[in-house]
Amino acid sequence: MSGFPGLPERTWVDGVPRADASVLDRGLHYGDGLFETLAAPGGAVRFLALHLKRLTQGCERLGIAVPDPELLRRELATAAAGGDAIVKLIVTRGPARARGYAVSGDETPSRMLLRYPWAGEDREAMRAGVRVRIADLKLAENPMLAGIKHLNRLEQVLARLEWDDAQIAEALLFSGSGALVSGTMSNVFLVQGGRLRTPRLDRCGVAGVMREVVGSLAAGAGVDCERCALDLEDLNRAEELFLTSALTGIRPVVEVAGRRLAIGPVTRRLQAALAPQLRHGEGGLS
Amino acid sequence: MSGFPGLPERTWVDGVPRADASVLDRGLHYGDGLFETLAAPGGAVRFLALHLKRLTQGCERLGIAVPDPELLRRELATAAAGGDAIVKLIVTRGPARARGYAVSGDETPSRMLLRYPWAGEDREAMRAGVRVRIADLKLAENPMLAGIKHLNRLEQVLARLEWDDAQIAEALLFSGSGALVSGTMSNVFLVQGGRLRTPRLDRCGVAGVMREVVGSLAAGAGVDCERCALDLEDLNRAEELFLTSALTGIRPVVEVAGRRLAIGPVTRRLQAALAPQLRHGEGGLS
Repeated sequence: MSGFPGLPERTWVDGVPRADASVLDRGLHYGDGLFETLAAPGGAVRFLALHLKRLTQGCERLGIAVPDPELLRRELATAAAGGDAIVKLIVTRGPARARGYAVSGDETPSRMLLRYPWAGEDREAMRAGVRVRIADLKLAENPMLAGIKHLNRLEQVLARLEWDDAQIAEALLFSGSGALVSGTMSNVFLVQGGRLRTPRLDRCGVAGVMREVVGSLAAGAGVDCERCALDLEDLNRAEELFLTSALTGIRPVVEVAGRRLAIGPVTRRLQAALAPQLRHGEGGLS
Repeated sequence: MSGFPGLPERTWVDGVPRADASVLDRGLHYGDGLFETLAAPGGAVRFLALHLKRLTQGCERLGIAVPDPELLRRELATAAAGGDAIVKLIVTRGPARARGYAVSGDETPSRMLLRYPWAGEDREAMRAGVRVRIADLKLAENPMLAGIKHLNRLEQVLARLEWDDAQIAEALLFSGSGALVSGTMSNVFLVQGGRLRTPRLDRCGVAGVMREVVGSLAAGAGVDCERCALDLEDLNRAEELFLTSALTGIRPVVEVAGRRLAIGPVTRRLQAALAPQLRHGEGGLS
């Protein structure tokens, strides 16, 4: 899988090349922070404004001081420079000023940056589609944490531990109340009667940058896109199904829990609309 | 509050005196780990076996290799030595071997240890009781994460951010489905018709070491103790109410969300039974 290229080439903490972070950091103690994973084809971060928007919203939701966007842009540019890369940015509330959950108000947020090599999107996965499973784990619902990309990711770790078949690219996750939510590391879209639908993420899940991009592309391509409550029955009735993430673009799903699906015209139209923004650009799907 | 004595006196990572941890640690990236906060009156960790039992169960639930218990005992003894202390132990799955949620199987768990000064339990809080509020935040329910003391603690951070009145010692938390669960950093017991009851923690919450100790003491003191589903009505009908934690012992609740409560005979009987195991020992409540 293109998602596991190994260890980072370089790392920074608070703008300084470093491999270590404070053992007092509240990110470590409580998952008290947020992250973004950005694709940087040709050494330039794409969809930067959308990533920074989500990070800012996450900081505001958690009451973490928003780092200076210009500082973040500079540091991200430095990390991304020098060829295709994936850059992971972690922003935490910072080193704890005292023991316990309480926030003193004196915390200074930490910034961790990791640069990984990147071979670009997996073109074969975009062309031929991927197989997915349905996770046994059900996501817990908490509107206070829904939508943002916070550091409390044990559910995703546990769901990813459920399989090690390399032929399975992703698992779809449902919430405890039976709503279809997302993949472990992607958002999900389905087509029903020619209409594009993606789960509302008001109780759990991460509102992905590529989900946002695809929503905009759909509007431009004359495809009606709705964010709504979806369940297993909707999944079973889907005519087309695809996954999105900032790193992988649009991946058609050709099999979900053993059921075969064709790659349909809406998926292909959106892939074509997205292609110019991907690593491989215009030639992506030919 | 005795819970916030400031910064640690000393810290260790993997047994070595250090102030930093790897920026790749999965504890930081995903909250992929567990912790214990241990009281060490007179420089010796108390309830060690119970703490290690819970840590082991947590590791097994998350599929993290359990660190050698003898190694942990030695390192905890070193951290605790030299007078009253609170020792916090974090065990994570270790530095990530690759990007993404997947576990390679090659991870080596990390051990972080922090030693804080400790003045002992707050005797006044034990004698006169504490005031508590009810959190607005509702805990998400996930049986896969319930009971263990994992590092995904954003809910506790957010619930603790709801108040800054120093007269309020704790907030009681309910789950999304309306079950009474715990405090942000304590377990809760109530007395109804002379019977002791504490929430079952099969959908969320942390099964505290002091909750376990009090359950055993109750049996020895002829008090019937039941772990069961409890809700707001049960809380409203409670004749006695108290909080427990490994650091604070038993704290009677004298006010919950504005309603006054008397400190009752069951609470006092259990406090007396616990006193010999506390920092101030036999004289604790006189």
